[in-house]
Amino acid sequence: MYDDNNVFAKIIRGEIPAFKVHEDPHTLAFMDAMPQSDGHTLVIPKVRARNFFDIEPQALARLIESTQWVARGVRQAFNPGGIRILQFNEAMAGQSVFHIHFHIIPCYEGTELLMHARKPADKALLARQAEQIRQSLAAL
Amino acid sequence: MYDDNNVFAKIIRGEIPAFKVHEDPHTLAFMDAMPQSDGHTLVIPKVRARNFFDIEPQALARLIESTQWVARGVRQAFNPGGIRILQFNEAMAGQSVFHIHFHIIPCYEGTELLMHARKPADKALLARQAEQIRQSLAAL
Repeated sequence: MYDDNNVFAKIIRGEIPAFKVHEDPHTLAFMDAMPQSDGHTLVIPKVRARNFFDIEPQALARLIESTQWVARGVRQAFNPGGIRILQFNEAMAGQSVFHIHFHIIPCYEGTELLMHARKPADKALLARQAEQIRQSLAAL
Repeated sequence: MYDDNNVFAKIIRGEIPAFKVHEDPHTLAFMDAMPQSDGHTLVIPKVRARNFFDIEPQALARLIESTQWVARGVRQAFNPGGIRILQFNEAMAGQSVFHIHFHIIPCYEGTELLMHARKPADKALLARQAEQIRQSLAAL
């Protein structure tokens, strides 16, 4: 089941704000409000899909291509030693918002990842990081 | 850079064995030899790609569509409470074989995930689990 009042559906409709880094007709990318590391970005489709199992293959393909594009910008902006692409299905797997999303999580030398979805980041910091990523994407 | 002697390249060429659950002209899926949970499956493309950043978008799209298909079989076979789809880039992010791969990791009530790539699983167990997934895929 898909709940139209989930947080990401509201972000798509513009009912609540997000620090967006990319938007196209099919997908939207924005900073994770409770990031696990600097540059932690989420990519979502605009279709109503709860998880990996109920999204149409074509929409999933567009979503992963958009994720690849956005991840290039994240990499360019933050130059991490590694990047994780994560997608969680159902609460037992760590899903906390029930609109399918891919996490782009930079991994840095000597820095442990923070726990998922525990602590909101400073909004000014997220705004700056989103701007860095947008600029990197514009230059790709 | 792509090393043609990585373990997954050898599996694709049939030079070393794997417990396969799915194969098509573009992708291959098999049991992770050092699983984090029962049913932990990997999906790889047959193209030479080190990671998320150097795979062509069309090949990436095919890879995620295959991953979705195989994950349905894993879900059907093991009925986990949740499933994680993970993809690691570079050692700092946890990548240990440098041929792009998606992990399908079932999450079960009351069972912590094992550490990644630490302990080989019993081969007879992997063979049985691969058979379960193949049967589930055949019935989808």
